[in-house]
Order: sequence, then C-alpha cells, then structure tokens
Amino acid sequence: MLNEIGFVRGGYTTRKEAPRQGFHDDRLFTLEIKEECKGATLELKVGDIIQVVYFANEADRTALRTKPPKKEEKYGVFSTRSPHRPNPINICIARVEEVNDNIIVSGLDAIDGSPIIDIKGYSLSLHDALVAKYK
Amino acid sequence: MLNEIGFVRGGYTTRKEAPRQGFHDDRLFTLEIKEECKGATLELKVGDIIQVVYFANEADRTALRTKPPKKEEKYGVFSTRSPHRPNPINICIARVEEVNDNIIVSGLDAIDGSPIIDIKGYSLSLHDALVAKYK
Repeated sequence: MLNEIGFVRGGYTTRKEAPRQGFHDDRLFTLEIKEECKGATLELKVGDIIQVVYFANEADRTALRTKPPKKEEKYGVFSTRSPHRPNPINICIARVEEVNDNIIVSGLDAIDGSPIIDIKGYSLSLHDALVAKYK
Repeated sequence: MLNEIGFVRGGYTTRKEAPRQGFHDDRLFTLEIKEECKGATLELKVGDIIQVVYFANEADRTALRTKPPKKEEKYGVFSTRSPHRPNPINICIARVEEVNDNIIVSGLDAIDGSPIIDIKGYSLSLHDALVAKYK
C-alpha cells in the first residue's frame, strides 16, 4: 500500500533516547528524499512548519493496550499516542531549518533510518480554529 | 507495510462533496473497526478528540506538484495538504460522539469506505505548547 518517500538521517539511535516530544530539543535531522519524489519538495522553505509522517520500524505491532506514562491503568492504544499499535505510523510537527538537496528540520522525535511516508504543510491558524471549536 | 484497522462508513460519497475542513460540518461518521483490533478502542469515550489516519483511495499518487485553492502557482505537494501525493494518507481531527460496538465521530472529511490506518488520542494542550513555540 505504501512506499517510503525517503529516510530520516541523524535522528536518535534508540527509542529510549528519543524525547517524548520532539519540539523540546533543538537537534537537527535530515529528511533524505528519494530522487523520484524530489519534485514534491519544491516550494518548501526555511521556517515552514510541516507534519512529518514516518514509520516506527521497531514498534510492537501486536500491542492493543498500553500503560501511558503517568497513568496507572492500561488504555486501548487508539486512545493514546504510543508508537506501539497495529500500524505504527508516527506524526510529528517539525520546522524546516535548511533546504538543500534534502530538507533539514528540527523538532522531530524519530530514530535514525526511519522510513518517511509523507510530508504535509501544517497551518497553525487552522489548528487555532480547531482548538476554538473543541476546547 | 500496512493493513487497515477498519473502514469509514457513512461519509461523503465523492471527493467533491467533502468539505475542505471536516470540522465545519456536523455530519456523523462510523469508524467500523475490525474484530481483531477492537481491544485497541477500549477507553475511547464520548468527547475525546482524536486523530483519524485514513487512506485516500481515489487520490492521484503520481502528483508531485499541485495548485492549492486560492493560489495562482503550483506547489510541491509536500508543502501542501492536498490529498494527491505519493502516499495518500489523510490525517483529520475528529470528536468521539458515541461509543458502541464501533466509534461514531463528527468532524471528519473522509469518503464512505475509506480504509482506516490508525486512530490516536489528540492533546489540544500539547498543540498549544507547539503553537507557542512555532508561531
């Protein structure tokens, strides 16, 4: 169903090392984009806020329930953000820091070598409208 | 790489009919979850805000550039939220309206029959922190 569009380079080496939220850290990551997908990166520019969708290779795909940090009980994984789930797709907001042949970003929480599935522009003001509706 | 965890039922019938942002509409959708994944829906409850990750079957997977609404020029699809992209995974925030054998939600923008890839809990306050950092 999916083919990766590239790979994360220079991220954390183990899941343990990765922070709970990528934006707490200023580390830089390279989004190495496959040749055949490079046309889709045109117009990305420094300062853009993007959603990076990547595959968590080392997740437990049999996990249906999990104990979130700071909780005592187990929860169904679909009510959590645990990487362990039937389709371990992670979604992380990042900031474009440099555009060369590839894309350099900060704010990610990915492990080195993670396959990238998609990159989307992210609208902060759209999010504000959403928060206003649901809060 | 992925197996759907279920299907959207009762959504829009065509892409044209679907709104640009699902949360502008109060229509209800059923997330019909496969038997073997139902354990992962436990603890989801009415009022929860979730991210629904689904596959856009009818998207153009060869699209690398697209003209966003209200723009004159084409943009690389990775700087947009167009459904047309190499891996047409859509991410939409929704609200849980009812939990029975399946999950009833509002706010989605999906077409009837779309394969569901993942459901994640969504934290509005986490996103406030993110907006504060990036705005």
